[in-house]
This record gives sequence, structure tokens and C-alpha cells, in this order.
Amino acid sequence: MLRVTVWNENIHDKKDSVRAVYPDGIHGAVAAAVKELDDVKVDIATLDQPECGLPDDVLGNTDVLIWWGHVAHHEVPDELAWKVREHVNKGMGFIALHSAHLSKPFKLLMGTSCSLRWRDKEYERVWCVNPGHPIAEGIPPFFELEREEMYGEFFDIPHPESLVFLGWFRGGEVFRSGCCWTRGLGKVFYFQPGHETDNSLNNPHVRKIIRNAVRWAAPANRREKLDCPNPIPAEEMVRHGMDIGWY
Amino acid sequence: MLRVTVWNENIHDKKDSVRAVYPDGIHGAVAAAVKELDDVKVDIATLDQPECGLPDDVLGNTDVLIWWGHVAHHEVPDELAWKVREHVNKGMGFIALHSAHLSKPFKLLMGTSCSLRWRDKEYERVWCVNPGHPIAEGIPPFFELEREEMYGEFFDIPHPESLVFLGWFRGGEVFRSGCCWTRGLGKVFYFQPGHETDNSLNNPHVRKIIRNAVRWAAPANRREKLDCPNPIPAEEMVRHGMDIGWY
Amino acid sequence: MLRVTVWNENIHDKKDSVRAVYPDGIHGAVAAAVKELDDVKVDIATLDQPECGLPDDVLGNTDVLIWWGHVAHHEVPDELAWKVREHVNKGMGFIALHSAHLSKPFKLLMGTSCSLRWRDKEYERVWCVNPGHPIAEGIPPFFELEREEMYGEFFDIPHPESLVFLGWFRGGEVFRSGCCWTRGLGKVFYFQPGHETDNSLNNPHVRKIIRNAVRWAAPANRREKLDCPNPIPAEEMVRHGMDIGWY
Amino acid sequence: MLRVTVWNENIHDKKDSVRAVYPDGIHGAVAAAVKELDDVKVDIATLDQPECGLPDDVLGNTDVLIWWGHVAHHEVPDELAWKVREHVNKGMGFIALHSAHLSKPFKLLMGTSCSLRWRDKEYERVWCVNPGHPIAEGIPPFFELEREEMYGEFFDIPHPESLVFLGWFRGGEVFRSGCCWTRGLGKVFYFQPGHETDNSLNNPHVRKIIRNAVRWAAPANRREKLDCPNPIPAEEMVRHGMDIGWY
Repeated sequence: MLRVTVWNENIHDKKDSVRAVYPDGIHGAVAAAVKELDDVKVDIATLDQPECGLPDDVLGNTDVLIWWGHVAHHEVPDELAWKVREHVNKGMGFIALHSAHLSKPFKLLMGTSCSLRWRDKEYERVWCVNPGHPIAEGIPPFFELEREEMYGEFFDIPHPESLVFLGWFRGGEVFRSGCCWTRGLGKVFYFQPGHETDNSLNNPHVRKIIRNAVRWAAPANRREKLDCPNPIPAEEMVRHGMDIGWY
Repeated sequence: MLRVTVWNENIHDKKDSVRAVYPDGIHGAVAAAVKELDDVKVDIATLDQPECGLPDDVLGNTDVLIWWGHVAHHEVPDELAWKVREHVNKGMGFIALHSAHLSKPFKLLMGTSCSLRWRDKEYERVWCVNPGHPIAEGIPPFFELEREEMYGEFFDIPHPESLVFLGWFRGGEVFRSGCCWTRGLGKVFYFQPGHETDNSLNNPHVRKIIRNAVRWAAPANRREKLDCPNPIPAEEMVRHGMDIGWY
Repeated sequence: MLRVTVWNENIHDKKDSVRAVYPDGIHGAVAAAVKELDDVKVDIATLDQPECGLPDDVLGNTDVLIWWGHVAHHEVPDELAWKVREHVNKGMGFIALHSAHLSKPFKLLMGTSCSLRWRDKEYERVWCVNPGHPIAEGIPPFFELEREEMYGEFFDIPHPESLVFLGWFRGGEVFRSGCCWTRGLGKVFYFQPGHETDNSLNNPHVRKIIRNAVRWAAPANRREKLDCPNPIPAEEMVRHGMDIGWY
Repeated sequence: MLRVTVWNENIHDKKDSVRAVYPDGIHGAVAAAVKELDDVKVDIATLDQPECGLPDDVLGNTDVLIWWGHVAHHEVPDELAWKVREHVNKGMGFIALHSAHLSKPFKLLMGTSCSLRWRDKEYERVWCVNPGHPIAEGIPPFFELEREEMYGEFFDIPHPESLVFLGWFRGGEVFRSGCCWTRGLGKVFYFQPGHETDNSLNNPHVRKIIRNAVRWAAPANRREKLDCPNPIPAEEMVRHGMDIGWY
């Protein structure tokens, strides 16, 4: 049983223009996509809930956390952002969608400014540049998004461990649209489509990619705490009574 | 002219046991190594100076910042750590030595806990696993450190973009001892040797590696500010009056 | 159903000293480890079979190919080595064990000499340096091999996309013992333990790692042929009759 | 003194349409760009010379080899391609321009098919996605090529160790246009612009990138032979008469 929590700041979602596209909110659209996986439990958490919907027991029982935020990044307490980072370091998967590139947890995980160029209302082609990657399973060489927000380079992120998708925008920009990293025991995926008034989260390829990413980001191992027991006594490392060290 | 600032918390350095090894302090030993480069200006900054020795104009005029800290990581203000991260994102090089693995700026740049195993007073072999890398220039296949603090895996760092050195310790541990990353426009190098009472910073190979790392981490480009100008007007991207977009 | 082919040159395996350790041959030990997976079909192929046991239909119906070779690398026809490389580029997984570092297919996939240092009859510790990686699932921080052949750096391989294990050897060497790469749509894993007269392939951690690697290397996608259809007609890329290009 | 050899198949270069753009041949244009470096010696080698212009002493005295080929890849003897690979593994830099993506040496270094999509006569924007990289020194956020051959994804190359440039093409494609790898002690750079009848090799940004790449690819270290001395005697690794091993 894979336990997925979809977090959304849930602010745009109250406007008619967004409800028209995502009647159950952005979180609802993402959750619906994920629920098509077998053997998955999907919960919703939003900024307006107590403890932003992410008290310790929720984080501790989440295998993969999906994050959407935009206008209220600053309302997420620093302490919560650090907790998310710590849970990722311990093994929790983290998927940042679209404008979550500037969310506090993502920036803490990256170590960079995560800034980029942008302009709304663009036509995008999403190209697959790593078709053997698990997140690309079942995705064609490219697919189209009729209208999506242009995100353009230079995208200030660390070199991805795997680069899975590139975006082409009609206005003349390119973007590293699907990127993977490891942070501690946790896996991180950033995916660019998902503007609040465009319809990308209903696109079948986008939804498939999110499902693939959830599977990929599921923890292989987890650890209880971040610190190793230290100092390591020499005798623990000496084997079978043989002198390996010089003590 | 390459402008290097060597930062040291300068606390151990006041003890006789450390003075016996590093009469001019750890910073003095590091600075002496760097000064052997041609066309370099080396300054010292320490925790006990005003603004921890790193006011804005010093950071703004530093090409490569070398960092040594251990017992006083917590005395470095968060605000300064974030400034260092920002300067690296804009292009400043950053070299973290030994126990700087737990320094605030390094942890902010990595996005991980940077925890590891440790035990003092070990014999180490440093192996080169990337002999074509600029930081390995002039370094033999391996060299020995008579006594160094064992740092052992699991070292909780992001996958290095280049892994240059591995450490072998007599007690049975291994360590990724020399690691490179890019963060924004800046380059980051972590190097494991350099415990305060061992003598590694006087080792000619260690000193050569620090010099090589300074050259490697020198900025190729810098940027003034972290944000791109946004939103990008479509007309700026339309070329020569031709309609590239559909506006 | 995952289709795994275990290839072995099957030469050492006829000696009593090897039979004593691996009564069913090295291939038998590897196949037994893999068979513990659910929903897997495991076949054996050896050098002394027609077409070295790997005619086109076998390669075409293999999801993951495991390779063990040592003294007879040169007896594998170049043509077969190139075919293996091509199948990997199309999506087949490839796992090279121990002395397969000098096998023709592995060297063709790497683009380097794959040379290393070696000395038999060593005590090894295998350390996990990427505990969140799927190949590390269920593996402790380190495990011991009473006797294994030392393989030491510099190991002339391309920078691994993921480095999962490091080897520590009592004689003073270190080694990148578990390394991952992507080649085309295919995944490649190199794993160092597995000398013919040592007993590592019966070690439960080694066997678990091989199973994990098989799961990891299973193709996400495959392609029929290596070439893209070219040239791409502009009209195919023009969308909805709108002029994207300037034709 | 950096010793650069520019290799060109020199076939298109005899046509009027190419002479009109590159009166001294493609090799002449590339060599002219490189000669603007200080302290560099540039030689030309072409397919129609004895030993394809690359006898052993030329390869042995080349620090960086630049390669341009297109219609005559198959006329380069396999033996020469393997020699180039070996020299790169020993430390020689290698820069593959444009259609050299299908050259024998490049494919041997990559381990993949290096196939891609293409269509001539396109407008391209080259975006910098790693502005801190030495190869990006002095290059703006993007620059334009009025006419260049579109090369599009999926480009079947191994994950670049550094990705420096992305190409945007008016027809709707994207491409990883500037990619870095290490192979052995040698550095490899692939750069997409440079079609024989377009004018990119006279573009000042392209020329600057080629110069930057030459500096970057210059060997830090070289080795004489690919094999390590083996087996390593235990006594060589035992230190100061202390028993490290158990012999």
C-alpha cells in the first residue's frame, strides 16, 4: 500500500476561473490521477487546515508527498518546510508540480534559487529525452499542451541526476521540464506543467507521468533518524578479533 | 587576480595542541597553501570578527570562499549562511574542508543532512578516482595521511557531479572524500582531510588539491541578481518582426 | 513476467575448485538467486552453446541479461558484443558481474578501458552509499565478504549515474563496487563481487542485490530500431495548420 | 602550449556551396576560431591525407582533437577510431561538432547509437542552461542562429555529466546541444551547430564556445598506458612493515 499525500495551497482553487478547469481543486485533479494506481491510498492536505494539513503523524505516514503552491509560499512556516526536507532526507518521496519550484521545501532541497523565466498562455511541446526512465513509461516521443505557462531557462536548479523531459514553447524558450534528484534516502521529481487556469492536469500524459513519478519516488528504504551513531568505537569495526586498526 | 577568502571559526586554534600543528591557525595553513598560486589575493576571515568577518562587501569581492568550522557551526547566524548560499548561486566558489560538512552554508547548499560516521586518530589512504579532473592535476594514484579523522559512509550528500577522491580508513570504512557540485553559477567542492590536531593541511598533496580546487571553483560567469526579469513579454521573444508566437 | 538470461563463459566452472563452491556453475548460482523473484523466467546461456547461447531470438526475448566472463572474453565474437550493445540501447537491461568489467559488451557500453587493480584472496567490506536506491533495498549499511578478489581504483569507467556501493579491502584499496548507467533505453549495472573460487554469489546480500538490480534494470520502454525516421518533414511538425516554421 | 588538431573529412568542402560559406574549409573556420586562443598550436588533419592525417605521433602529440565528419564516417578505419578512443581514455580531449555525432570515435566513446531527428534549414536559438560552466564563459542567456540544421530529441547519448546548452528550433523541436562527459582521463564535448552550408562556425558565440571547450578539454593529467600493473603484490600495499592484510 503506497501512501500518497497531495498538498495544495488551495487559494486559486476558490476562483471561478480555476473551478471551471478543476472543479475539485488542483489537489482534486492530482489526487484523481494518482488514484488510478493499484494499491494506493491518497490523502489531501491544504494550507488552510490546522498545521497546514501536515502534522508530524501525516508526514511520518506519507510515502510520497506531492506539492502544489504559488501565491502563498511565504505562508508555509519555515519549520514545516524544514520538516519536509528532513522527511525527504529520511526517505519520503517528493514531487513538486509547476509553480512549486519556488516553494520553501523545494528550494531547501535544491540549495539554489530555483528562479526561471515565465510568461503565461503558451503552446508547449513536452519532449521525452530519457525514454528508458521509469517516469517515461508509456509516454510518446512528445506530446502537446494547448495552453500552458511558459517556464524558460535559465532554471536555477542543480544538475538533475536524470533529465526526463524538455519543454519547447512557441515563444522561443526551452525548459528542463522533468527532473530527478536524490536527497538523502528520498527521491525528488520536478514537473513543469500544471498552471492553475490551464488544463494540463487533465491531460492523460501528464496524469500518467504523475503516476509514474509516484511509483518511482516511493521509498526503497527509510531511516529513523538523520544522525549516525557516533563516534564509531574502533572495536565495533574490528572484525572477529583480528586487528584491523592499530589500537 | 583571483580573490580567495579563507574563513575559520578560529576556536580550536587557540589551544596549544592545535598551535603545535598549525602555529598560524588552521586558516593560516590553508592561506599559505593557496598563496602558492600565481596571481591570487588571499584574505582571512574569522568568526570573532565583526559580522563574522564576512560583511557584504567582502562576500561580494570574493571569488572563492574556503570554509573551516567545527564546534561553533551554530554561532554562524542563519542570515549569513543564507547570504553565502546566495553568493554561491550567483557564482562564488565554495570549498568546504573537513568538519565544514555540518556548517550551515554547506548544508543549505546540499539540501541534505550531511551526516556521516566518524572516529578520530586513523590512518587514511586517499585514492584518486577521477585522474582527469582538474582538481586531481599532479596528484598520484593514492597518498597517505598518517593520522586523520575517519569520516565514513553513509555520507548524506547529493550524488556528486564529479567524484574525485575516495578515502580508505584502517578501521574498515570508506568515504567519498572529494566531491564536486554546481549550485547556481557557483561551484562547490567538499574535501574530507583537515582535522584540527592532525597534520593533513601541511601535506603537500592536500595543499595541491586545495590549490587545484580554488582554480576549479573560480567563477566562469557571475550574475547580479537571482531573479530573471519576469514576465517575459512575448514581443521580446518574437524575432525580427516574425510571428513566432500566436499573439 | 520478467525474462532474465544468465550468460556465463562456463570455463572455470568445470574445475573441481570451482565446482566445490558452485556445484551448478557460476550461472547456476546466479540463476538460483534470480529465481527467488516472483513472476520471473530465468534461462541460462553459455559460451559453448551454438551462437554462444545468444541467437537473435534469445536476445530479442530477454528483458535483463546478466553476464559473467573472465578468461574467454576474446572468444565472444565482436558481432555478438555489438548486438548486445544494440539490444541494450533498445531497452534490454544489462548486469555485469565481477570480471565482466573486461567483457566486450561492457567495454562497448562504457566507452572506456574498464581497467583496474586487482589481487585475489582479500577480505572485503561492501558499503552502501546510496541507501535510497532501489538496488539497495533491504541491504544493511555494510556487509562483509570473507574472501573476495580485490578490485581497486582507478577503475576506468564513466562517472556512474548512481553509485550504490563502495568496496573496502583489507590491503588498503577502495573500489566503486556497484555502479549504474543508462545506455539508450537500457539500464546497466556493474557489481564487483563474484570471483570464481570465492563464495560471494551465495552471500544473501549479494543475491538480494542481484535480484534488486534485475528489477531495476527491467525495461520501462523499448524501441524497435535505433534510427529515428528522418528527415522529419516540416509539415509533420507544424500543428493544426498554423505556421510554426517559415516554410 | 596547447596542441589542438582539427580533423575534417574535407569532402563537402570542395563544393562551391560550401566554399561560399567556408572558403578555407570547415576545418579552416574551426582552426581560425581556435587560433584566437593564446599559447595554442593548431594543426589540420583530413581524411584524404595518409593515415587519415592521424598517424600515431600526431595523436600522441595532440592535447585536444576536434572532429567534423558527415558523409564519410564509414571511410574512417575502425582501427583509427579505436586509437582515438584509447587516446581519449589516456587523457586527450575530444570535441565532436555537429554531424560528428555519428562518427566512429564518438559512438565508441558514448556506447550508444547517437541517433537523432533532423531537418535542414531551420532557425535555432541556443540557450545556456549552465551559465557557471567554463564552456559558457562569456556567452549570453541565449543566442540565435539564422539557419542551422535542426537536430532533435530523442538524442541517444548517455546522460551528460554537464549539460551546457539546449537548442530550440522553430519547427517545434528541442535538443541537448552542448554536452560534456569524461571518458577515462579525457574530456568529451559535443556541440550541435555546424552544418556545412549554414554559417554557424562564423558566429562569434559559436567560436567562443569552441575556444572555451578547447580550454576545458585540455588534459589535467595523462597516463602512458591503459592497464594498471597487476596483480598488485600485497607487500606493496602493506605500509611501514605493519600488517594491514592477513598474509
